[in-house]
Amino acid sequence: MTFRNRIGAILDTSLFQNAILGVILFNAVILGMETSGPLMDRAGGVITLLDKLCLSVFVVEIVAKLYARGVAGFFRRGWNIFDFIIVGISLVPATQGLSVLRALRILRLLRVVSVAPSLRRVVEGLVTALPGMGSVFLLMGMIFYIGSVMATKLFGAAFPQWFGDLGRSAYSLFQIMTLESWSMGIVRPVMEVFPYAWGFFVPFIMVTTFAVVNLLVGLIVNSMQDAHHAEDAEKTDTYRDEVLTRLGDLEALIRERRDQDER
Amino acid sequence: MTFRNRIGAILDTSLFQNAILGVILFNAVILGMETSGPLMDRAGGVITLLDKLCLSVFVVEIVAKLYARGVAGFFRRGWNIFDFIIVGISLVPATQGLSVLRALRILRLLRVVSVAPSLRRVVEGLVTALPGMGSVFLLMGMIFYIGSVMATKLFGAAFPQWFGDLGRSAYSLFQIMTLESWSMGIVRPVMEVFPYAWGFFVPFIMVTTFAVVNLLVGLIVNSMQDAHHAEDAEKTDTYRDEVLTRLGDLEALIRERRDQDER
Amino acid sequence: MTFRNRIGAILDTSLFQNAILGVILFNAVILGMETSGPLMDRAGGVITLLDKLCLSVFVVEIVAKLYARGVAGFFRRGWNIFDFIIVGISLVPATQGLSVLRALRILRLLRVVSVAPSLRRVVEGLVTALPGMGSVFLLMGMIFYIGSVMATKLFGAAFPQWFGDLGRSAYSLFQIMTLESWSMGIVRPVMEVFPYAWGFFVPFIMVTTFAVVNLLVGLIVNSMQDAHHAEDAEKTDTYRDEVLTRLGDLEALIRERRDQDER
Amino acid sequence: MTFRNRIGAILDTSLFQNAILGVILFNAVILGMETSGPLMDRAGGVITLLDKLCLSVFVVEIVAKLYARGVAGFFRRGWNIFDFIIVGISLVPATQGLSVLRALRILRLLRVVSVAPSLRRVVEGLVTALPGMGSVFLLMGMIFYIGSVMATKLFGAAFPQWFGDLGRSAYSLFQIMTLESWSMGIVRPVMEVFPYAWGFFVPFIMVTTFAVVNLLVGLIVNSMQDAHHAEDAEKTDTYRDEVLTRLGDLEALIRERRDQDER
Repeated sequence: MTFRNRIGAILDTSLFQNAILGVILFNAVILGMETSGPLMDRAGGVITLLDKLCLSVFVVEIVAKLYARGVAGFFRRGWNIFDFIIVGISLVPATQGLSVLRALRILRLLRVVSVAPSLRRVVEGLVTALPGMGSVFLLMGMIFYIGSVMATKLFGAAFPQWFGDLGRSAYSLFQIMTLESWSMGIVRPVMEVFPYAWGFFVPFIMVTTFAVVNLLVGLIVNSMQDAHHAEDAEKTDTYRDEVLTRLGDLEALIRERRDQDER
Repeated sequence: MTFRNRIGAILDTSLFQNAILGVILFNAVILGMETSGPLMDRAGGVITLLDKLCLSVFVVEIVAKLYARGVAGFFRRGWNIFDFIIVGISLVPATQGLSVLRALRILRLLRVVSVAPSLRRVVEGLVTALPGMGSVFLLMGMIFYIGSVMATKLFGAAFPQWFGDLGRSAYSLFQIMTLESWSMGIVRPVMEVFPYAWGFFVPFIMVTTFAVVNLLVGLIVNSMQDAHHAEDAEKTDTYRDEVLTRLGDLEALIRERRDQDER
Repeated sequence: MTFRNRIGAILDTSLFQNAILGVILFNAVILGMETSGPLMDRAGGVITLLDKLCLSVFVVEIVAKLYARGVAGFFRRGWNIFDFIIVGISLVPATQGLSVLRALRILRLLRVVSVAPSLRRVVEGLVTALPGMGSVFLLMGMIFYIGSVMATKLFGAAFPQWFGDLGRSAYSLFQIMTLESWSMGIVRPVMEVFPYAWGFFVPFIMVTTFAVVNLLVGLIVNSMQDAHHAEDAEKTDTYRDEVLTRLGDLEALIRERRDQDER
Repeated sequence: MTFRNRIGAILDTSLFQNAILGVILFNAVILGMETSGPLMDRAGGVITLLDKLCLSVFVVEIVAKLYARGVAGFFRRGWNIFDFIIVGISLVPATQGLSVLRALRILRLLRVVSVAPSLRRVVEGLVTALPGMGSVFLLMGMIFYIGSVMATKLFGAAFPQWFGDLGRSAYSLFQIMTLESWSMGIVRPVMEVFPYAWGFFVPFIMVTTFAVVNLLVGLIVNSMQDAHHAEDAEKTDTYRDEVLTRLGDLEALIRERRDQDER
């Protein structure tokens, strides 16, 4: 067993993985404490030190993985890539413009999902439900693009803060789809200038709401289907086996009699 | 093969249809770029030219279809009519008052739906779900008419901006049904003047919400039914066939013995 | 056939009922026109006259029904009572204070429901779904009573306009349950005075939303159950009949052979 | 029968329990009346006296239960502990700072749930549905923690009233998840300072809404499953029994013939 294999074996032990999980959770708490001003004033040095220590552990873990599995083997797993990016971000010197990158460090907590099997199953369930809804998402995208172009052309000049360009229109239409302040905040003011604006917004709300409802219904029906299929099939199969076994017994009995008769 | 038939054959080739799909998508991008002020300032001429080019392609396509299928054959398909209107609108000179017509040109993007089979299936699914909900829609319409008349009579004089006439009342009630600012924005101010106004609005919210929920439930139950029926029926039929085949074997065995005995 | 019976027979003819339906719809349009100021200025006399004519028809209908069926027979049907009250309200002289009664006249349109069978089925479906949810409604009532008493005691003194008495608290909590302006409009201002107010409102939102969701789930499961049961039972029964018939044939065959042997 | 046993027997009689239920409901009404200022001015003495009387009844009930069942037996039932705490709270002298404790007294009304079996079943149904959703709740908690840390780091300095610390951020994100004023109230003002803030909030809304929808779907599927399973299993079992009985008869018939032949 080479040194490389021995490192790989250590990385796979559940002790090592639990230790890493512990560091992840501890780091999440540390990053939470970092948001508190008074706490940072009193113990900022310790907190930053502990965060750097956690970071070092992650760097060492990644370097060890890179060494044990090789560069190609390491980057084959999506979660390793995610890990590499997150840790890499933390190593970028924290200048003013990169405060967003610093904030992204808390995403490390998501590594917990890959460890707990019950959480992994929930996330996989959510993700596997997505492709089945691809057509509806595509349709939704088209509706938003059409809606944004129309809203920008119709109301863009008069209401640049809401419909000034495609991006603003898409954001405003998303807000309208969630029904937040759609009437009092946006459509009523727009109707002061364009009295027939409701002819655009009310159908938009109905169409997008209907599409969302259909996504929901599709999700429910699919989930039900899967659950139902598995359970029901099992029950029916048990039942069929009972009846067929019984019929087999009967057939054996009849054949036995025939053989008796023939002897 | 006449020239007319040859044109019809060209129109039906998938190459031609894909080319038209390409022009539709390209035109959608062009129409999106048209909404951007700076882009129009720099390259407005090119963009307008490309839009006119796309339009020319559509005009030629329609003229070719009209020639190949005849006027009666062309207007028999709903989608051709939609196409004809959309292209016709784009040919109307763009005066101030017709800016709405210009904005409608982006609806051409909807032609994509008729091409992609998965999108067509989603839209057909949504549309076929509608007639089964006809009674609930009719009931909803009645509730809105009754609500609008009552709201106009009760609150129209004091709050003309919300309940001044039937149209405004219907719009305000739609807003209330979506729960947007219903209380802080509308009902609380109304209750300053009519302290018992909640006696109208709270039941209205409950009734319409309940009706919407029932629409949703109906949709779910119907979808489930269809899906369930198809799958379950197949399974049970397979099972029945197995049992009946087995019983048939048994019967043949008994008959065979009888015939043996009789010989 | 007495004169009384002949009147009763006329009231039951579909011609008469369709005529009444026509008057109901015509009256609904007239009542809608009454809400329009300019229309009333121009043709108020004609509109009021037509409304009075419709009213006369309803009065004559009720008097005829009272005569044909007798007072006891008339008031046995709930819809007759509803009708009697609605028409009675319209006969009360329209003073300032009774404008609410005038507004209630449009409820006559609801008589359409009792005529159209598809609408009647939808309404019956909604109504029969209610008792099954009785326990959840009772629980909801308790949560609202407890919430109102607590909110009034805790925040009533500081925010009399929202939580001044039990009625206002119940209304505000209903608004909060619908999530309308719950935070920006109510809870954030309350938290300025009582920083821990979220400890009351956030659980309230979670509990009531959860209860509403459970009402919805219950509705879906019940509807599905009924639909599923009916369809599935039929299929399984057909299948069982086939298998049992086949088994019966088999038994008859065996018995027949036995009888042959015995002879 | 000792005096202690006799007390225990009295506590278990339905007469005594109905009396206590009556006192609970009466007390709820009294506590409701206590919230009314004018009523307290006129009859405050009587109301306070009646509340104290109800309280005495509860104290006597608890003391009797403590005596009859012993301290250990009493505190074994969760509801007794709840009862003890609620009554204990009422005995704490009502100083200014403990007005919250006074408001909690109305929670006594919840004791009704333990008495009415239909209510108890609904609550048990709601509670038993919770553990099955544990993973989703855990995931939701993680999303909220990550979201709060990120929001505090990104927007805390500029918008201390919304994202000043982890608690405020969590509250604001809860508000955003309920879609209340998320755009007009919070995200649009934030976007004035951080133009790309939508890149944080729009995905947050989509992820949390999707998670909530999945909770709902899981609930529906589970409820359906249980209901479906119970009903379907019964039906299929009945059917299987019929077929198997018939097959048993057939077998008995064949055996009988064989025995005849052998004799």
